[in-house]
Amino acid sequence: MKATIITIGDEILIGQILDTNSRYISRALNAHGIVVAERTSIGDRRDQIVATLDRALAESDIVIITGGLGPTKDDITKHTLCNYFGSIMRYDEVEAEHIRTLLAARNIAFNELNRGQAMVPECCTVLHNAHGTAPGMWFEHNGRVVVSLPGVPFEMQHLIDEEVMPRLKAHFDLREIVHRTMITFGIAESILAERIAQWEDALPEYLHLAYLPAPNVVRLRLSAYEVEGKEVRHEIDRQFATLRTIIPDNIAGFEDASVEELVHNILIERGDTLAVAESCTGGTIASKFTAQAGASAYFLCGVVSYSNEAKCNVLGVNPRDIEQYGAVSEQVAKAMAEGARVVSGAKFAISTTGIAGPTGGSAEKPVGTVWIGVATPEKNFAVLKNCGTDRSQIISRATAYAIALLYEEIK
Amino acid sequence: MKATIITIGDEILIGQILDTNSRYISRALNAHGIVVAERTSIGDRRDQIVATLDRALAESDIVIITGGLGPTKDDITKHTLCNYFGSIMRYDEVEAEHIRTLLAARNIAFNELNRGQAMVPECCTVLHNAHGTAPGMWFEHNGRVVVSLPGVPFEMQHLIDEEVMPRLKAHFDLREIVHRTMITFGIAESILAERIAQWEDALPEYLHLAYLPAPNVVRLRLSAYEVEGKEVRHEIDRQFATLRTIIPDNIAGFEDASVEELVHNILIERGDTLAVAESCTGGTIASKFTAQAGASAYFLCGVVSYSNEAKCNVLGVNPRDIEQYGAVSEQVAKAMAEGARVVSGAKFAISTTGIAGPTGGSAEKPVGTVWIGVATPEKNFAVLKNCGTDRSQIISRATAYAIALLYEEIK
Repeated sequence: MKATIITIGDEILIGQILDTNSRYISRALNAHGIVVAERTSIGDRRDQIVATLDRALAESDIVIITGGLGPTKDDITKHTLCNYFGSIMRYDEVEAEHIRTLLAARNIAFNELNRGQAMVPECCTVLHNAHGTAPGMWFEHNGRVVVSLPGVPFEMQHLIDEEVMPRLKAHFDLREIVHRTMITFGIAESILAERIAQWEDALPEYLHLAYLPAPNVVRLRLSAYEVEGKEVRHEIDRQFATLRTIIPDNIAGFEDASVEELVHNILIERGDTLAVAESCTGGTIASKFTAQAGASAYFLCGVVSYSNEAKCNVLGVNPRDIEQYGAVSEQVAKAMAEGARVVSGAKFAISTTGIAGPTGGSAEKPVGTVWIGVATPEKNFAVLKNCGTDRSQIISRATAYAIALLYEEIK
Repeated sequence: MKATIITIGDEILIGQILDTNSRYISRALNAHGIVVAERTSIGDRRDQIVATLDRALAESDIVIITGGLGPTKDDITKHTLCNYFGSIMRYDEVEAEHIRTLLAARNIAFNELNRGQAMVPECCTVLHNAHGTAPGMWFEHNGRVVVSLPGVPFEMQHLIDEEVMPRLKAHFDLREIVHRTMITFGIAESILAERIAQWEDALPEYLHLAYLPAPNVVRLRLSAYEVEGKEVRHEIDRQFATLRTIIPDNIAGFEDASVEELVHNILIERGDTLAVAESCTGGTIASKFTAQAGASAYFLCGVVSYSNEAKCNVLGVNPRDIEQYGAVSEQVAKAMAEGARVVSGAKFAISTTGIAGPTGGSAEKPVGTVWIGVATPEKNFAVLKNCGTDRSQIISRATAYAIALLYEEIK
């Protein structure tokens, strides 16, 4: 079963927003055995929507469209689809009532534009958008399915999970897609490829190998499309076991969940608790944990100690350590982690202190220098990492290193 | 001048990575007056690359391709382009030497696969990739330009900035694209659209209006494509001046500045300081401020007081207030903000305490209930907001409301 994803909106084409919807939908479709053949982003233009839909329907069984469902004049997706399928608009009382309720909760009057949001093409099945005012729509056309969803990410996500995927599973006879990724480290892509060439050549035809290089890490992904999952998973296990004999010292593990998910699950399972003390990562580590439902079971406290006073007053860092070694130092990273542990009463704590740039670097401590501290009931140590040259890159790498270090410690 | 962006890689279609390259390229092209007509992501398959290229060349003057240039077998872009343009491969000594030097710095031997990276189609101009081993390529074909770049983001970015954009400017006679965005707040999208309908209808035909809603904020973007920039900017200024007379109390600022950027600029300009105390937003507010270069000038401290103990021990909230009113209450929100102000010594502080869900709600305080606190040298108050029903929605709305409330207070 093949799918095309179409995201509509000039804000995507001019680069004003990042298209995260396509990725979410790709993952959901893949998880249910549907092959994403193509993703396309186009503008809010009738002719372009029609041409893209023509092409998508010629190539795919399923077309998922997001965007262009707002109440204002620049949003034309709904009327374009209504015309495309030769239908007319009807007023949906249930949706109107839902919109009225959502608006009332925010003290907003229901007006003509909201009335327009409750209009839907007669030929579609309405997908109820519990979290927003733009209903989703499900069209069937010559054995193909076209779904139109709002572009607001969390509204789209709920609709995909709760409405679209269950319906697609019921409507089509879906097989499985299997992806499995092995993480290798300490070996360059070209050397790795040379070393495993024979293994690669002997792979069964239905297994596709991809190399995904990153600094010091190459991910090897084996994929099989529309297969019997159980058998294929077995075969992939066998293939990876062989690979382990070829590069025994270069395998870091397998990739399923994010590292913060792994930590989240371990802490909940064991009833252990966590605190964080962040300088250069500025709250990003705390936000990664607290974004996960159930985090309050273990996440006790985060301190974003940006100023030296906060490091000393809130976390109990010794001002003399800051004076002697600098705020970005092994001593301060250790003291921050231990301070967070003590002030919160948590079992584990991690800390970051570094130079996120663009200014503040020196020859001795250039931009990108980050000390990551760990405190447990038994240990208190810190590790030095160079996290790159760009502020957002440094924040995200330091966050990833800190969470990985915690995972290593508790796993 | 129209462009199509093609990103190649199965890792995009299965959602293993987020496609940030398309956005970067979109912005660069827009900034130089080139209209992005479409963005497409496809797999590492010869037939699909050829079909997509055929279509892109029929519609656009410029095609920018990223991905599929690695040294391994799954990367087929270079050979596919070479065939597409009827060329043959040649060995580029300069690129080979560059690759050899890069590898030597990492103690990696130059092997057959690296030799393959130094092969380029005879018909292309090589775009030197100073930061990586895969050269970029520039093809000219029937008056159109096709550029192929590596998919590694920072390598692609350097090539776009240093090689591709200067060459496109020299090659084509480019006009201008103008985007200008006004930020409105405190008025729902549908109400706003109703209020400015007459103004919208009277806009000159070449000005396109887009509504970009976010929690408590609606951005209004006026765009004009391939015009004389100076004149159009003048006209947009006039139009926005008129708009100011229609909604005088709802304009927060201009351009793409987010509300946190506006606060950032005000605090730096005035030399004022900020602290935050977060419960349900879990570090997200702190991370928004500290993501901005220069935040250390005013951001003193954030406290993610997830546990009641942290609220009391770190922020000095009275345990009896938590007992009597609950952690999610006006009293606790006020005390958290004032506590953050006192412990950090900052002039201003904001706080959040709410129920992010999915569990923890009650009839009296359902999921989505958030109290937002503000503390200044003169005031200490809190505001109740319903921030939705979904955890990530609640976190992002509460974050936006809190920052907007601070902006209101200091602007």
